[in-house]
Amino acid sequence: FACGLGAVAPAGAEEVPSLLSGDNLPRETKEASLEALIDRIEQLEATQDELLADRKSLEEQLAHRVATGHDGATMELSGRIHADLWTFPGDSPGVNGFESGDPTVSPQDEIGIRRARLTFQGDVADNMLYKLDLEIVGSNHPEFRDAYLGWRDLPLLQTLHVGNQKRPYGLDHINSSRYNVFMERPMVVEAFNPGNRRLGIQSYGVSDDQVWNWRYGAFNQGLIQDEYAYVSDNWQPQLAGRLAKTAWWHEPTNGRGYAHLALAGSWADTDQNAPVDNYAGSGRNEARFATRPEARSSASWIDTGVIADAEHYTLLASEGVLNFGALQLVAEQQNLFIERARGESLYLHGAYAYLSYFLTGEYIPWDRETGQIGRAIPNESFFAVERRCDVERGWGAWQVACRWSYADLADQDIQGGDAEAITLSLNWYWNAYAKLQTEYTWGQIEANDLNAAPAGPNAGDYQILGTRFVIDF
Amino acid sequence: FACGLGAVAPAGAEEVPSLLSGDNLPRETKEASLEALIDRIEQLEATQDELLADRKSLEEQLAHRVATGHDGATMELSGRIHADLWTFPGDSPGVNGFESGDPTVSPQDEIGIRRARLTFQGDVADNMLYKLDLEIVGSNHPEFRDAYLGWRDLPLLQTLHVGNQKRPYGLDHINSSRYNVFMERPMVVEAFNPGNRRLGIQSYGVSDDQVWNWRYGAFNQGLIQDEYAYVSDNWQPQLAGRLAKTAWWHEPTNGRGYAHLALAGSWADTDQNAPVDNYAGSGRNEARFATRPEARSSASWIDTGVIADAEHYTLLASEGVLNFGALQLVAEQQNLFIERARGESLYLHGAYAYLSYFLTGEYIPWDRETGQIGRAIPNESFFAVERRCDVERGWGAWQVACRWSYADLADQDIQGGDAEAITLSLNWYWNAYAKLQTEYTWGQIEANDLNAAPAGPNAGDYQILGTRFVIDF
Amino acid sequence: FACGLGAVAPAGAEEVPSLLSGDNLPRETKEASLEALIDRIEQLEATQDELLADRKSLEEQLAHRVATGHDGATMELSGRIHADLWTFPGDSPGVNGFESGDPTVSPQDEIGIRRARLTFQGDVADNMLYKLDLEIVGSNHPEFRDAYLGWRDLPLLQTLHVGNQKRPYGLDHINSSRYNVFMERPMVVEAFNPGNRRLGIQSYGVSDDQVWNWRYGAFNQGLIQDEYAYVSDNWQPQLAGRLAKTAWWHEPTNGRGYAHLALAGSWADTDQNAPVDNYAGSGRNEARFATRPEARSSASWIDTGVIADAEHYTLLASEGVLNFGALQLVAEQQNLFIERARGESLYLHGAYAYLSYFLTGEYIPWDRETGQIGRAIPNESFFAVERRCDVERGWGAWQVACRWSYADLADQDIQGGDAEAITLSLNWYWNAYAKLQTEYTWGQIEANDLNAAPAGPNAGDYQILGTRFVIDF
Repeated sequence: FACGLGAVAPAGAEEVPSLLSGDNLPRETKEASLEALIDRIEQLEATQDELLADRKSLEEQLAHRVATGHDGATMELSGRIHADLWTFPGDSPGVNGFESGDPTVSPQDEIGIRRARLTFQGDVADNMLYKLDLEIVGSNHPEFRDAYLGWRDLPLLQTLHVGNQKRPYGLDHINSSRYNVFMERPMVVEAFNPGNRRLGIQSYGVSDDQVWNWRYGAFNQGLIQDEYAYVSDNWQPQLAGRLAKTAWWHEPTNGRGYAHLALAGSWADTDQNAPVDNYAGSGRNEARFATRPEARSSASWIDTGVIADAEHYTLLASEGVLNFGALQLVAEQQNLFIERARGESLYLHGAYAYLSYFLTGEYIPWDRETGQIGRAIPNESFFAVERRCDVERGWGAWQVACRWSYADLADQDIQGGDAEAITLSLNWYWNAYAKLQTEYTWGQIEANDLNAAPAGPNAGDYQILGTRFVIDF
Repeated sequence: FACGLGAVAPAGAEEVPSLLSGDNLPRETKEASLEALIDRIEQLEATQDELLADRKSLEEQLAHRVATGHDGATMELSGRIHADLWTFPGDSPGVNGFESGDPTVSPQDEIGIRRARLTFQGDVADNMLYKLDLEIVGSNHPEFRDAYLGWRDLPLLQTLHVGNQKRPYGLDHINSSRYNVFMERPMVVEAFNPGNRRLGIQSYGVSDDQVWNWRYGAFNQGLIQDEYAYVSDNWQPQLAGRLAKTAWWHEPTNGRGYAHLALAGSWADTDQNAPVDNYAGSGRNEARFATRPEARSSASWIDTGVIADAEHYTLLASEGVLNFGALQLVAEQQNLFIERARGESLYLHGAYAYLSYFLTGEYIPWDRETGQIGRAIPNESFFAVERRCDVERGWGAWQVACRWSYADLADQDIQGGDAEAITLSLNWYWNAYAKLQTEYTWGQIEANDLNAAPAGPNAGDYQILGTRFVIDF
Repeated sequence: FACGLGAVAPAGAEEVPSLLSGDNLPRETKEASLEALIDRIEQLEATQDELLADRKSLEEQLAHRVATGHDGATMELSGRIHADLWTFPGDSPGVNGFESGDPTVSPQDEIGIRRARLTFQGDVADNMLYKLDLEIVGSNHPEFRDAYLGWRDLPLLQTLHVGNQKRPYGLDHINSSRYNVFMERPMVVEAFNPGNRRLGIQSYGVSDDQVWNWRYGAFNQGLIQDEYAYVSDNWQPQLAGRLAKTAWWHEPTNGRGYAHLALAGSWADTDQNAPVDNYAGSGRNEARFATRPEARSSASWIDTGVIADAEHYTLLASEGVLNFGALQLVAEQQNLFIERARGESLYLHGAYAYLSYFLTGEYIPWDRETGQIGRAIPNESFFAVERRCDVERGWGAWQVACRWSYADLADQDIQGGDAEAITLSLNWYWNAYAKLQTEYTWGQIEANDLNAAPAGPNAGDYQILGTRFVIDF
């Protein structure tokens, strides 16, 4: 086959010829001969033979497709792989101590698999559903993430989930790690919602006009994805909810422009006695707030530790998103008020804001039913494929972003650290399902007595470079 | 769209019109015109175009359905999620000690995921099969459960499995946890068959008339689902089998009435030297019988400990089921005779019986091929779905049940506890695949010197409340 | 139904009758009557009704087939189960010490599950791919194996994988455990490539005529399938590659005869400081080479330990395969040169060769794109199935093989053992996807000071019997 010669026939379904196409002739004239009818019948017979052969092929293919457990169930099996590379240039005795416990030992680089997740979800019978995540890269062994059953289309409650699921605060936590603009979530979001998911019952709703959406529920505060159960007579219940409004939605572009506002909050009853009498080693006072520096360090660099005499706490959070085509502006602010049995009440707080921009013109979609970002779709996929006589190229989508973030976990006697950071990000989307993320973060921490190395400084600054290969399927 | 106005067209496949329906006219008269033939041909052509379009759609859907590893394999991917809540009202120093080791510390409540299981099974080539369970909630990390390969349709042996599989005793252990009436299995069934599955080879058979079914095989007694291998020169082999008869089967109702009887037994060679020289930490004398109190306590409340000088033991068990429509009566009794190198032989035993009744008229099906209960199907699913102008409601199926159970693990010097319990159960089946189970148990334990807290009483009583959300897919 | 009486109608798709079969009649004569046309139309209508009914059935089946996460992804879900039995007849104080640390305690038998693996792989969007293995039987909990994303059809790089993947040396390591002739891999292949997979980036190529294939890439040397990440500022990078030639390919038999030659090598920078300052417990000098005795012992019987002052090492390997129908001859030789900061450089080496033969005439296929063996397909599957009046039998495929193998891990002060072994193997293939492997190994080890029991001998010999049940799906 010589390059450049000969037109390549389009590969597609063969057209079924319309034998009689003289549309403006009277019916008697054009169809009256037996010959024409016989031609049409022969054509029908030939196509029918083809369909019968195809049916056999489809049946054979179906036979080695994976079936669900019974006729009442559907299943979607999806997954994601995130492979990371982190380096920590620069060196600060304080930060060294937060990470390694030794002011002279700096944070070490990390190369590894960040997520290797498989998700099994679907519907059962008329109006029920299930979801089960397997995270192969758990804390030190595989763990579940989402693990719930539920209902759709209930009156009043709309969708209801029972089991392990995300708590309803922190837009960045509600967003999927597949879609988030930055590699790791903001400090305040991680600190006030460590581990994100809890066992509980939660209702998810949306108004008919998709302007309002909400979620609220009751949870136990023990993180069970690693231990599978919370064992204690000292329950630590929590009520939490989020009310969101899609304040603006640009219909003509089907949502290239939108604005989102939400308020979220929680009242959480922590128990001072949780660790007492706990032969099963399961309970602890859940008033502990900590986060890594928006990167995969080994330790949480700011960390209140367990606030042992905490009796309950209240979380108040607000969030907003403004999107104009390729440009997105996001901000969240969260406040935490902790009542204590002995000391005065504590006030911890944090916020972040980011600006992201697609150099190649794409946009980040918005999901009005659940109030979270969706999957960005490049105008052109990245590829460099050798075709017959040429290399076809596409360059994917390119996005730049900048995030400012802080979390203040230091108040009164609880000097758990006050951190502030700036992150610059460059994301290269190869297609809608795969991308390369790169980041540079500069940050500083102070008032971090609780996490300082013995005799080490309680403050320091840091720089971080991160790269992530991402695919989801 | 105004509620109550306009008939809703039935959603279904369009009917293919039969153009010529005057069946009693002579053929020549009714079909002799070309017009009529042309109409029929046009109809055929139109429908064929539709079929061709559908074929394309089916092919596209097939392309993103999950395929098995090769054309010789089929696969069914199923799973289950069980989410539990357990509380232990009441307080007894003896029972406190069995659980916590401290007579003053009572059993703690538990909230957690009881099972999050994925099952991969299917056929390979002509007559082989495989099954692999992944239980994400293992002991303290994910583990396998069933893990075997096998053959179907063999002469004499019929179905043969090689690998990790259920041992052939204990009807309640043979039953799937998806179908069992009570949340946890009876004490004697758990105590005499701890962990249920073992590595071995087992034949499964059924008579042509489905009156008799049986299973028998040889196993190693080491539980390997957590350690993956048994490492010891001191093998601990076991022969076990079960012969069952479906003594009555009500054909007119296709099995709403039936009676089942079975005998099961095992001869097991335990090795006193298993822990000796065992650098791999794998072996132990497998003569240890223990069970939780039919609930998710942290400890086994009755427990013989390893009976160090046990040389072998014999198990004899009998079971019966009688089902009249919505009413089911089940009973099992098991005896264990342990021969010891030094002490006299021990006799441990236990039994349970339960009565269950569907208030809504359903019944528990019986599987005559394998001698176990099947999936109960509610007459009406539970739902409360907002349709156009109304809320459609169904109430599912409701079942009550009562179980009496005992296990006597105390004989001579082995005072491992003698427990008796009554459980009341209320099950709400939302559909054939999901339900809510609730239970109340009252029990008492005596002769439990081996598990008593230091200087604590060897007897006590307890109450337990349990709730479970169940779905399988 | 009486045996032997009556012909059994062939079960298959019904033939669509060709109504007009008198092919040599002129068209006018045979088709001119309306009667004949009406018959044909009626036949078309009947078959079309059937197709419409089938379409509905196919759609219903599709609805409970498992779908991928999005329309851009395909998935193949495959798996394997390997169940093992190992015994160690004979007794040698030296070998006892290598295994148990006590010259009087011999290697213990092992019964267990060797592999229970699930593999999720497929394509994403235009030219990307992914693969994720879950090995339920990991080291002491489930782990990943392959975990990568990649591209196909790139210019120059052809196929490119990023993530955890096999390193490009050791034919026997590149081969799948589903296809390998022997139960465990040769000592030198295990010793010089412990754990096989590393996080890295690797290109896979093949020439247009399929004569040449190659793979090369860069890796970090830390094994992360158990810890998920390598945490250290002291990177231990490695370059490695393999160039292979299918030197002979017998076209007339489509590859029942072939010859393969390959050279492979690596340059690896090991870091003496990796364990220093490593608060995360992650780093170690990766210059450690060790292997089990081609069987599932608990310990590596020959083992250099961490060669603490190693600075870098070079691997050079050559391999060849010669296949004449049922007969296969394979040989590999590998050399390792380790440069040290203080001591002289070390030279470790090893090799193996095996001859395998299908008594039943089958052959081991060769994959010319990747340079590895493929799936052997028995001429006749094993089965013994009761049909109506008879037992149908097939005997599967039978293969014998003999392997000679050695690994010399003893040089200068590093007396990590010099081992040599002969293995005889008998494999019974039940079909292309399942088999029974049995092996007998005799071996001897000397110069093994580093692994000898305290005051025990540094040499000894051993015998091993192994059996494995294998299925893949």
